[in-house]
Amino acid sequence: MFGIFGHPEAANMAYLGLHALQHRGQESAGIVSTDGQTMFQERGMGLVADIFSRERIKRLRGSAAIGHTRYSTTGTSRLVNAQPFRIACHRGEIAVAHNGNLVNAASLRSGLERDGSIFMTSSDTEVILHLVARSQARTLEGALVDALTRVEGAWSLAFLFHDRLIVGRDPWGFRPLSLGRLGEATVVASESCAFDLIGARFERDVRPGELIIVDATGVRSEMPFRPRPTKQCIFEQVYFSRPDSTVFGHSVNQARRQMGAALAREHPAVADVVVPVPDSGLCAALGYSEVSGVPFDFGLVRNHYVGRTFIEPRQAIRHFGVKLKLNPVPGVIRDRRVVLVDDSIVRGTTSRKIVSMVRESGAREVHVRISCPPTVGPCHYGVDTPTRAELIASTQSVEEIRRYLQADSLGYLSIEGLREAVGGGAPFCDACYTNDYPVPIPKEKPAQTGLFEVRR
Amino acid sequence: MFGIFGHPEAANMAYLGLHALQHRGQESAGIVSTDGQTMFQERGMGLVADIFSRERIKRLRGSAAIGHTRYSTTGTSRLVNAQPFRIACHRGEIAVAHNGNLVNAASLRSGLERDGSIFMTSSDTEVILHLVARSQARTLEGALVDALTRVEGAWSLAFLFHDRLIVGRDPWGFRPLSLGRLGEATVVASESCAFDLIGARFERDVRPGELIIVDATGVRSEMPFRPRPTKQCIFEQVYFSRPDSTVFGHSVNQARRQMGAALAREHPAVADVVVPVPDSGLCAALGYSEVSGVPFDFGLVRNHYVGRTFIEPRQAIRHFGVKLKLNPVPGVIRDRRVVLVDDSIVRGTTSRKIVSMVRESGAREVHVRISCPPTVGPCHYGVDTPTRAELIASTQSVEEIRRYLQADSLGYLSIEGLREAVGGGAPFCDACYTNDYPVPIPKEKPAQTGLFEVRR
Amino acid sequence: MFGIFGHPEAANMAYLGLHALQHRGQESAGIVSTDGQTMFQERGMGLVADIFSRERIKRLRGSAAIGHTRYSTTGTSRLVNAQPFRIACHRGEIAVAHNGNLVNAASLRSGLERDGSIFMTSSDTEVILHLVARSQARTLEGALVDALTRVEGAWSLAFLFHDRLIVGRDPWGFRPLSLGRLGEATVVASESCAFDLIGARFERDVRPGELIIVDATGVRSEMPFRPRPTKQCIFEQVYFSRPDSTVFGHSVNQARRQMGAALAREHPAVADVVVPVPDSGLCAALGYSEVSGVPFDFGLVRNHYVGRTFIEPRQAIRHFGVKLKLNPVPGVIRDRRVVLVDDSIVRGTTSRKIVSMVRESGAREVHVRISCPPTVGPCHYGVDTPTRAELIASTQSVEEIRRYLQADSLGYLSIEGLREAVGGGAPFCDACYTNDYPVPIPKEKPAQTGLFEVRR
Amino acid sequence: MFGIFGHPEAANMAYLGLHALQHRGQESAGIVSTDGQTMFQERGMGLVADIFSRERIKRLRGSAAIGHTRYSTTGTSRLVNAQPFRIACHRGEIAVAHNGNLVNAASLRSGLERDGSIFMTSSDTEVILHLVARSQARTLEGALVDALTRVEGAWSLAFLFHDRLIVGRDPWGFRPLSLGRLGEATVVASESCAFDLIGARFERDVRPGELIIVDATGVRSEMPFRPRPTKQCIFEQVYFSRPDSTVFGHSVNQARRQMGAALAREHPAVADVVVPVPDSGLCAALGYSEVSGVPFDFGLVRNHYVGRTFIEPRQAIRHFGVKLKLNPVPGVIRDRRVVLVDDSIVRGTTSRKIVSMVRESGAREVHVRISCPPTVGPCHYGVDTPTRAELIASTQSVEEIRRYLQADSLGYLSIEGLREAVGGGAPFCDACYTNDYPVPIPKEKPAQTGLFEVRR
Repeated sequence: MFGIFGHPEAANMAYLGLHALQHRGQESAGIVSTDGQTMFQERGMGLVADIFSRERIKRLRGSAAIGHTRYSTTGTSRLVNAQPFRIACHRGEIAVAHNGNLVNAASLRSGLERDGSIFMTSSDTEVILHLVARSQARTLEGALVDALTRVEGAWSLAFLFHDRLIVGRDPWGFRPLSLGRLGEATVVASESCAFDLIGARFERDVRPGELIIVDATGVRSEMPFRPRPTKQCIFEQVYFSRPDSTVFGHSVNQARRQMGAALAREHPAVADVVVPVPDSGLCAALGYSEVSGVPFDFGLVRNHYVGRTFIEPRQAIRHFGVKLKLNPVPGVIRDRRVVLVDDSIVRGTTSRKIVSMVRESGAREVHVRISCPPTVGPCHYGVDTPTRAELIASTQSVEEIRRYLQADSLGYLSIEGLREAVGGGAPFCDACYTNDYPVPIPKEKPAQTGLFEVRR
Repeated sequence: MFGIFGHPEAANMAYLGLHALQHRGQESAGIVSTDGQTMFQERGMGLVADIFSRERIKRLRGSAAIGHTRYSTTGTSRLVNAQPFRIACHRGEIAVAHNGNLVNAASLRSGLERDGSIFMTSSDTEVILHLVARSQARTLEGALVDALTRVEGAWSLAFLFHDRLIVGRDPWGFRPLSLGRLGEATVVASESCAFDLIGARFERDVRPGELIIVDATGVRSEMPFRPRPTKQCIFEQVYFSRPDSTVFGHSVNQARRQMGAALAREHPAVADVVVPVPDSGLCAALGYSEVSGVPFDFGLVRNHYVGRTFIEPRQAIRHFGVKLKLNPVPGVIRDRRVVLVDDSIVRGTTSRKIVSMVRESGAREVHVRISCPPTVGPCHYGVDTPTRAELIASTQSVEEIRRYLQADSLGYLSIEGLREAVGGGAPFCDACYTNDYPVPIPKEKPAQTGLFEVRR
Repeated sequence: MFGIFGHPEAANMAYLGLHALQHRGQESAGIVSTDGQTMFQERGMGLVADIFSRERIKRLRGSAAIGHTRYSTTGTSRLVNAQPFRIACHRGEIAVAHNGNLVNAASLRSGLERDGSIFMTSSDTEVILHLVARSQARTLEGALVDALTRVEGAWSLAFLFHDRLIVGRDPWGFRPLSLGRLGEATVVASESCAFDLIGARFERDVRPGELIIVDATGVRSEMPFRPRPTKQCIFEQVYFSRPDSTVFGHSVNQARRQMGAALAREHPAVADVVVPVPDSGLCAALGYSEVSGVPFDFGLVRNHYVGRTFIEPRQAIRHFGVKLKLNPVPGVIRDRRVVLVDDSIVRGTTSRKIVSMVRESGAREVHVRISCPPTVGPCHYGVDTPTRAELIASTQSVEEIRRYLQADSLGYLSIEGLREAVGGGAPFCDACYTNDYPVPIPKEKPAQTGLFEVRR
Repeated sequence: MFGIFGHPEAANMAYLGLHALQHRGQESAGIVSTDGQTMFQERGMGLVADIFSRERIKRLRGSAAIGHTRYSTTGTSRLVNAQPFRIACHRGEIAVAHNGNLVNAASLRSGLERDGSIFMTSSDTEVILHLVARSQARTLEGALVDALTRVEGAWSLAFLFHDRLIVGRDPWGFRPLSLGRLGEATVVASESCAFDLIGARFERDVRPGELIIVDATGVRSEMPFRPRPTKQCIFEQVYFSRPDSTVFGHSVNQARRQMGAALAREHPAVADVVVPVPDSGLCAALGYSEVSGVPFDFGLVRNHYVGRTFIEPRQAIRHFGVKLKLNPVPGVIRDRRVVLVDDSIVRGTTSRKIVSMVRESGAREVHVRISCPPTVGPCHYGVDTPTRAELIASTQSVEEIRRYLQADSLGYLSIEGLREAVGGGAPFCDACYTNDYPVPIPKEKPAQTGLFEVRR
């Protein structure tokens, strides 16, 4: 998610910002810009670099823009769901980009439908736009506050209007959002690495519960929502953010390094080499190696040219799917006791294939180390995890998982170790490891009216 | 516009039907189908044959479907405006395809926006969906009647629901809509040529003001609207429909033939050859030749491979744009007195180029004959005409137009002659020739909220 | 086939010329240009308008260019066979575009292979390039004459070199080639309609057996080959050329009109309407109507939007393939005795479907009239006809064909009638109607070495 | 380069093999297969995963295939140059894939042209095919030996015929080629990582000067060429090969690790962190860190989603080109003395940008360490290096380069250190570091006939 106000090449900067944020979503991307009179929208399926031609960028006129990349969710990969959305209502044209997930979207939507609203997407974000349009508030900001007071869950949002950009974070601060400056222009981005690419200066994080209004007169901040305990997504540090970003005030690279270090202290291994699963396990493996004294080496090589769809041979090749992406380096692995460091085990199937592949390359022992606790619960606040039933750790003990992986040992970082690695204290949501959900998930899902998917 | 209910290959039939109706719109096309549980939507920019791959057709599951082709309107060629639309509301999922144009869409939209509705397209069709969703009527049919009672203007509509297909025509019957049968299945189409391609049998036209409800129990007809004088679009006969269609109960080919015949009687010419401007002037030219006794010949050849965008040379080529499409046949034209028959003169620029090109090929005289009266007013009921200011006949006399075209003579068919050619009588809207608009056009255009174009 | 020398926008003119010649080949197209130092080549599969983007045209620098469109031959639709070819040899770079077919290509190729030549295409044109490269002649022109003396069959050729353009026609003059002028530039094209589009002036046909050398010093003509009886392809007049072209000194439109007239005299019919099979039968039908007095009408409408591949429904639709392209107009046909005029019957399958479709539309009688004699032999000189075995008239009598078509009567134009329509006399090759092949076809086909197709 | 014989899914295996070898060439790729009767060829521009659809793979029938990926060379990126080539000659059809570069191609080509050969590509590989076709040898193998005896330079080749696969390496063994087994099938590949992906077993390297003939009767080896001192390309170990490959009998990963270790011994640095330039400097940086004791860290993060063409903003962004690919991690770099490890400095421009970017991220000192000697000479044996004039080290001293880079210190690995790291001894070509070219480069370049590029 990216926003910019007051730059002569707003759309081009948004395009580059989205490119730097590509890891946050590869399914679709879009940009909406405005020249103060009209809005311009370009969206497409696929990668930022493929969607935006020079011609499409040129069509995105004006000095303000917001952009979005969407990750692949199963089922409803449809262009109509690609953000930013752009609508007209009695307050004028509004575009919106949303990072996060609302937990009460289904019931709000039911209510809105009962009141005569129509929905054109299956996205929870559309609910917010309806609430803004229906608000009786006198001012635009008032209407946004009205709407955002009624939604529950995770939202980092960027709204674009003809004459202003308004961004905000929910009161728990689930998802990241940073504020920066590029010459005269104000910029916002999900991660600071987007600022680095365009040469913008990081200023500060948008605060949980803060709305920031950017217009021709300058930048104003408001804190219109009931304060809540800060609950920033710990998984941003574990996996989601890029290591060169500073997220929630911490260097991601450093946090991961410390996860690896703590993991080495909690789960040492008598071994010959520490091998990261690239790229997610790189930083933690380095930390593990440093503390354990076991040498670090690149025992798995990643193929950078993996395309989206791949033609499989009829005749089965063992571990085909994993091999397309990863290849073991026999010289590093053969006859060695290997510590394999990764950032998480979700369903367990991929990890099992990697362990088996490493073993076939001649490893004497394979010790799996994971730089976070077992993933026991799905995320309801904006990370695309499988359902609880699919999470191997929600039903299996660590020993059972170890047996499934056919690893010689398996160690997960403790929740305490993880918390300490990311700076300690309570301001994190770690529901996926603890089942402690800060915003309750409604039990009943309301009657469905089609065109809508309820997030697990 | 096409609809089908109760056919195992509903989407495939819709695809073929749209192909036969391709001349009605080349900008975008789409199909929505349903299997009774879910709706499936595929839309794209361009021609039917290019948009729908085998794979996309396969994704359109179910035994009911509606489809739409959209013609090119200036400015907002956007995928989001491609029909059929598909929405969810408290009555479930609804898809809609619309042929026509509402004259009170802007004011209805203003009202809906004031009541908190949001709009995602710039199309008048979205207004109808909001009205349906907001209706307090107990039944679905009731809600449709509610909504359609409030809109004014031209609408032939096909609504698809999970369990039924509802089609209808406005009480004036501006736009055509035919009902047919394909085995057990019920089909509807803007023109009968769509039935011919798929082997369906034409049954009858949907009546002005009629709603037809097709579901598992059969086909029901209702006439829920206040009756109005029938005002079918005479331009369908002059230009829009395919000559092999039967529209409003008349063969299009025959009507055009009779226009040409009447034209010959009204505006004879001492000439050697009657040359049609292909393909629009073909039938009328034949009628002209028959009555006048002046031999018919193909003096202009059309290039069938014209692509959408064409690379122009830097160095100007005379009449380049027209030449890409038409080439004169010198043997037919040289030293002859030529009667050039076309279906209309809009801005006059193309006609002027054709006259000049024919003259350069050696014609001794060029007599232009037009198979309808001068086009003096824009259409507000669904035909994409330029604004009044751009219509040459709205400000220039016939003699002035003749001088502009540099033709030796110019004759338009009289309105009486045209009416007689299409079967006589009053049931036609001929506002574009008479400025006699059956449904008044609101004077004031309401404050615009963006994302919306008001049709001239 | 198109060539131009001495024009600042040579490639752009070639592109437009090819566009006008698109009807001569839709499988692939290409242009080679030169700026005197280097050659530039762009080729692609499909239509001219789709292959050449603004960018590709820009890459084709220089003031001389040749271009080619290739028609679809079964089997080896490969980009490598798309012309113009471009090679390097000891005489420098050569590009070539070829219209026609050599009858001794296989044996020449065998010999060249025995002498150590390698072949990269399956085209007979490559043989010519080898012969040029191997010629011992002192001059370039000498080498071309050497090579072209050895090949037998049909060739209209355009050779492009860094400093000159050389074009020629075989001594029989099988295929057309016209010479024109565009300002200072010299242009050549297969048909004069290409000149019309770019505003060039037709000068004369290249003579059978003539080589024309165009370079900075001007235009020279040579007649270096042993003279032969002129044998111009009569099928160009019957079907292949565009009606607005002048080919072999005759207007194509006029020739077809006269074929129709002669057909009416030879095979009159007691009927109510003359219906052309569009577009090939249009001109002849007009001639038939004129002479017979039976009124002409558009009883079959062609769909202009037919794409290349079409998704067929599983459930068979009668006459599906024909219906995609043609639709009968019931008002013209019903209860009428119809004369159906077409330019040829090849396999008979399509004609049979059309007759049946017309009958189902209510025709009382269907009388088929063909504006040329029965096609009894395949073409070996550059027209893509099926093998003899597939030609219905090679094994069936006219009465047998009539029964197969289920027509009420069937009449072919006599060879005498055809000859007279195209200007009379002997200078035509009509082997496809008479089996009188002016250049003998080698009986034995030489051992094949792969990568080569022998033309039937 | 990949080859397979005797596998039911030959083309599919070739496709996967090429995918694993994608790093060796990203410009174009192709596969030729044979079913014993016919050859099938599919080629395209771009990446393997984008070129080969399921449909194209299906068209590549048969149980034998060869494939090739080509790297981007400036100027003549043309599909016609994409390999494998496929030709017909008197010995039948031949396809060939070539890794390497011939130094006497221009003079051989001149001679062949004088003898009447024509060339359709600008590739030296075409010369080999002409020589094979012109050989007087009785057998196919004899003709290959004839041809390959006459060419000088680097060639690892795979020839496919209808009934056999013949592969070989030049007598110096410049380029790698490995032999493996996949069930009953014989496979060859430039690097062993291609075997790993498809589950094939590495058997041995093809020996310098060896021809291996694979047919239905089995696998034969011949050594028909005059023996030469082995001169394997040392740059394969430094940069070109994938780290998980075993090349010339050595693990690439291990060799690079040892280069880094030797570099640390030769050029130690008082520093706080060792930062690799990803991905090329990863292994060497690890070795450097291990020996020096300076901790290793990921101070530069690579963006994996970089597309081919990127739209640059009008307003300059500092270090834009480098930033698209690499982003510094401030937490790793700020206030640190950084050792930056990379595999080579070519022109120096990119290295200079990286040093500057690292410094702007707060590094106190930047010490550049390169894991090979200064690159002083271009490669004539198949690696795409710039001309001598563009190589910064060909004209500048190490100290001058250091000043250009604005680095605090600069150290290159010595040639002795490099040789030791790759296993010691003489069997390597290191001309790019020593100007000691094992096969002399002809001084004079022969007169050019167009369509041909002489490799610097």
